[in-house]
Amino acid sequence: MAELKSKNLTWHEGQVTRDSREAQLGQRGCTIWLTGLSGSGKSTIAVAAEKALNDRGKLTYILDGDNIRHGLNSNLGFSPEDRSENIRRIGEVAKLFTDAGVIVFTSFISPYRTDRDRVREIMGEGDFLEVYVAASLETCEGRDVKGLYAKARKGEIPEFTGISAPYEEPEAPELVVDTNGRSVEESVAQLVEHLEKKGYLSA
Amino acid sequence: MAELKSKNLTWHEGQVTRDSREAQLGQRGCTIWLTGLSGSGKSTIAVAAEKALNDRGKLTYILDGDNIRHGLNSNLGFSPEDRSENIRRIGEVAKLFTDAGVIVFTSFISPYRTDRDRVREIMGEGDFLEVYVAASLETCEGRDVKGLYAKARKGEIPEFTGISAPYEEPEAPELVVDTNGRSVEESVAQLVEHLEKKGYLSA
Repeated sequence: MAELKSKNLTWHEGQVTRDSREAQLGQRGCTIWLTGLSGSGKSTIAVAAEKALNDRGKLTYILDGDNIRHGLNSNLGFSPEDRSENIRRIGEVAKLFTDAGVIVFTSFISPYRTDRDRVREIMGEGDFLEVYVAASLETCEGRDVKGLYAKARKGEIPEFTGISAPYEEPEAPELVVDTNGRSVEESVAQLVEHLEKKGYLSA
Repeated sequence: MAELKSKNLTWHEGQVTRDSREAQLGQRGCTIWLTGLSGSGKSTIAVAAEKALNDRGKLTYILDGDNIRHGLNSNLGFSPEDRSENIRRIGEVAKLFTDAGVIVFTSFISPYRTDRDRVREIMGEGDFLEVYVAASLETCEGRDVKGLYAKARKGEIPEFTGISAPYEEPEAPELVVDTNGRSVEESVAQLVEHLEKKGYLSA
């Protein structure tokens, strides 16, 4: 075997490629970018879909506020620039996971089209699935799991998406999952079926 | 199955945990943090070790200048603050991959102890393996695969580690891989044996 100085000759062919990782995992890496209002069901769907895929032996990972805002993006605030940088970094990390062959879910409101489109642009063709988790403001506010809408209505949360800040609906998402009056099970089935049909669940 | 509003009751137990991902992969997620001078052999070892592990069915990923500096950290320069932030972000991404169950190699000079120690601190016990890829300056400069040392000697690269900027050797690394006059094969065998012995290659 070669010594270090001749590495370019020796090792290039032996590299582990994305293809070989995907073959090993029996799946195609991709980023399922869940976008929608607070309370629309993004995290619930991510957790349930991950479980469904795991039961089928697939390797998944969820990027969400819990593991991003306290870690990688802990030095970002909520200014327009920081919100944009927040989404940019998440996109770059999702791209790395996708390259590793993992099926990644991202669960962020990500209300601005330009931010989401920028993520799409950095990803390879077919690697980015924009999934609009659609629920009316009424539905989301009715759920109000974290009591955020109540606070936002009282003016206690500035620039709250849907109340005092805009949500820009996707114009051409890969999938719309409408959660109005629908069970988690149905939404997850729709999403998994889409992944299956598009070939992400086999290598 | 529950509707979205009762998600906290329904889904918590069903979450995919790190343990279940590791069981599925037959390995323990960890970050193998390769540190050392330019030309010491970090990338060569990462690529060859990854191949060796892949041949054993393990899932690995390499974070290096190629996929980090042009992506996630493309908005960072080379000021002291930016260099530190560079390492911080890499550490946070490595932590996410480790949590996903992946065996991650990071291949960066990472010359400062404080930066490396900060990464160690954010990681769980046993998740961070500092691997000092040790080669004398003479050895590295003799290899000079990219011609960087020649440029640095001519003063064309400011603050080049080992020439005009310090490299702080690890004080208590998990492993020292000495590449002076040693084949890649030997170095990789030492590293893989360490991983095996410490239980990272089974779940």
